[in-house]
Formats: sequence, C-alpha cells, structure tokens
Amino acid sequence: MTLKVYANRLSQPSRAIIIFCKVNGVDFEEISIDLLKGEHKSPEYKEINPMAQVPAIVDDGLKLSESHTILRYIAETSPGVPDNWYPADFISRAKVNSILDWHHSNLRVSSVTFVMNTVLAPKFGRTMNPQAAAEAEKSLSSSLSIIESMWLNGDAEFFLGNPKPSIADLSLVCEITQSELWREGDRERILRPHPKILQWVENVKKATNPYFDEVHEALYKMKALLKAKQSE
Amino acid sequence: MTLKVYANRLSQPSRAIIIFCKVNGVDFEEISIDLLKGEHKSPEYKEINPMAQVPAIVDDGLKLSESHTILRYIAETSPGVPDNWYPADFISRAKVNSILDWHHSNLRVSSVTFVMNTVLAPKFGRTMNPQAAAEAEKSLSSSLSIIESMWLNGDAEFFLGNPKPSIADLSLVCEITQSELWREGDRERILRPHPKILQWVENVKKATNPYFDEVHEALYKMKALLKAKQSE
Repeated sequence: MTLKVYANRLSQPSRAIIIFCKVNGVDFEEISIDLLKGEHKSPEYKEINPMAQVPAIVDDGLKLSESHTILRYIAETSPGVPDNWYPADFISRAKVNSILDWHHSNLRVSSVTFVMNTVLAPKFGRTMNPQAAAEAEKSLSSSLSIIESMWLNGDAEFFLGNPKPSIADLSLVCEITQSELWREGDRERILRPHPKILQWVENVKKATNPYFDEVHEALYKMKALLKAKQSE
Repeated sequence: MTLKVYANRLSQPSRAIIIFCKVNGVDFEEISIDLLKGEHKSPEYKEINPMAQVPAIVDDGLKLSESHTILRYIAETSPGVPDNWYPADFISRAKVNSILDWHHSNLRVSSVTFVMNTVLAPKFGRTMNPQAAAEAEKSLSSSLSIIESMWLNGDAEFFLGNPKPSIADLSLVCEITQSELWREGDRERILRPHPKILQWVENVKKATNPYFDEVHEALYKMKALLKAKQSE
C-alpha cells in the first residue's frame, strides 16, 4: 500500500517530509489538510492523528505522528534512501538525533511563537501578544547563534561538517523558511546577523531542488498575500 | 574508556539516564553537576556541553547532549540491553520515538514551567509567575489525559500495550516524579484524576527498583526540605 502523508505545505514539518519523500523517490500520496478551515480538528482526521496536528502518516496500517519520528521511519524503511539522511553509524546517527531533539524546545518553539504573535494570530482568530513576540525573538536569535557555532562551524555545506544534508538539516531549514511569512523588517533584523545560516539554507535548497522550491510555493504565495494585506 | 555521565539527580532527564544505566548493568561513571551552584555554566562544563545543561555524556571522545538521544545511543551501543528498551523492529521503534518526540513540546515544557513557578524559582534567584503556573497546569493536565488515552489504554503495565518498559516509559515517568517537589494540594488536584498514570508510575518503579528509589533519593530529600520550609 502507498504511504499516505497528511500534510499542509504552510506547516514547516509537513514541508520537510514532503521534500524528503520527493528527493528520495519515495512512493507516497499527499493528502492536504486545511488548517485555516480546521480540518485537522475533524473527527475523520482525529482517527488518523488524535493529536489533531499535521503532519501524520499512515503506512500499511501504522499511524504515526511527530515529524522527526516520521523522517527517521521513512529513512529507515524506504529502499534506496542514501545514508547521509539518517546515518546507520551509531555515532553519526546520535549527532543527528541530538540536533533533532534540541530543535523541539529551542528553534521550534521560538519560531512558532514568533510568527504567531507577529503575523498569523488573526488568521486563527487569536490576538497577537507583543511581549510573547519580543521574548520569542530573543530566543530565536539565541537559537540561530547556537546553530552557527555548534553545527555550522568550518567550511562544510551542511551540519556536522558533512558534504551532504541529513534529516536534521532539512527539518531545521524548513523551520527557518517559515521566516518568509515574517514582516520584512523582522527578517532583516533577525536573520542578517547570521550569514552562515543564510548560506546553509541556500545549500539545503540547492541540494533538494527542484522539490524544495516546488513544496515552498504555497508559502511564497501566502507571503505575497500577507504583503499585499500589509500595504493596504 | 568508561562512559562518563554528567548529571544531577534533581534533574528528571538525568535520573532517567542513571536509572537506565544501572538497570542494564552499563559500566559508567556519574559526575554530579551542582545546578544550584551554577556548575553547569562553568567554562569546564561548557567544554563538555556548550548548551550548559545536564545531562550530557562523554563516550570515548564522543560528547553528546539531549537525554532522549543519549538513551537511544546507550541502548544501541551497550552490549546486552534487552530489546524492550528501544526495540530494533522499525514499527515498535517508531512508536517509541513518537512518544519521545511528543514529550518535548508537551509534558516536558508544562512540567518544567509548573515546578519552576510554584516551587523552584526563588532557588534560582527568579520570581514566580502565577499566570504561567496556571497555564502550565492546564497544559499538564491535558498532557496527562493524552498519555492515559493514547498509550496506557487497555490493561498493559507499560506504554503501547507492552509487558516491559521502554525508554519512553522511563523518560516520561521521571518527568512525572518531579511532582514530588510540588505543594501537596497541587499533587492531589492534578494527579488524582489520573489513576492510570499513578499505576503506571508504580509499574515503572517496580520494574527498575532498587535503582529507581536509590536515584530518586535526592529528590525525596529535597521534597522533605521544601516541606519543612513551607511549614515554617
């Protein structure tokens, strides 16, 4: 049975999984879940993922949520996925896992909080909280500095000095591209001090194109929409 | 070379690793890092873990942080660790990983925020924030309900219907035992509505004793200290 991927391309972990499957020729069916219409909270979707979140997969009866778990699982079970994505060697694998685990309580939480409280809240019927945005920005900048000093030191194109990307590169870059939705001044202020980050995002893009841009198309469109709204 | 574990037994992920090593006869040396004295922020410790957090390990030159990564790594590389802890089968392994990934942004964050803002803040020179505590309690209760309905359904003693514990059982139970530090009324109000959780904590304790109680001794002592302070 074909792997089913329940996703929304505006969601950063969804994008990581779709790009990963396309780059590696994984046979899968993408089922789009409209978050703004609340489809993730429908009883039908909660049968797939009771957490009511995207992404989720169904593979031959197995239902899985959590994007890092899904990336690891597809890398391990799909034939022909090159070793760089999720290395079989225990030491390299542990280093990738350590970045993925770090991501949850650091870059992920600040990125999600920042975009919600500077741009997206009204779209979900919520109020923006400027103090939460300010705290998230501080934490975001700190996370970007950690990424640069810990995993992008030296001249390597990808994390940990590797010549090819891992699922950690892909997951974290898809988090950072959520910045496409930020207000222009915010992007400039927060990202410009991190040239290594900007170069690494380009490296991951190049290594996974044309799929990277294709899957990010929905995000670019949303960006244009938001920009039009802001200049009204 | 002996595996070095840098830990503090008042830290829940530290406890999980120490208990795991003891139960499985892993040859390791525990190096205690005093968080209240700020030893985790010393230049010497930052050489081990630049994130300035416990736990961390050094294994034959490899430095690793993030407790879930460390548990996976020790389970995979130490001879003789039984398969129930981190199953080799891809499907069972993915289910364990999914719980571990979920933990970060759910039970972990609410548990840490709650204990900080009801008990520990003054010990770290911070002010308690009652609103943050109230929000954390709501999120904690929701996480406990998810654990019961998703992974403790049926009559099995451990997660996912298993007869023996996994690293996910151990990690999440060590998070919940942090509740030993809560005020008595908070424990009663938050934990009592979840009898399956209380039973499962007992099951994990029984499956890992005498090490579980031995490693929790420092927490029980801190609990007695806090109680004495409260009744002053």
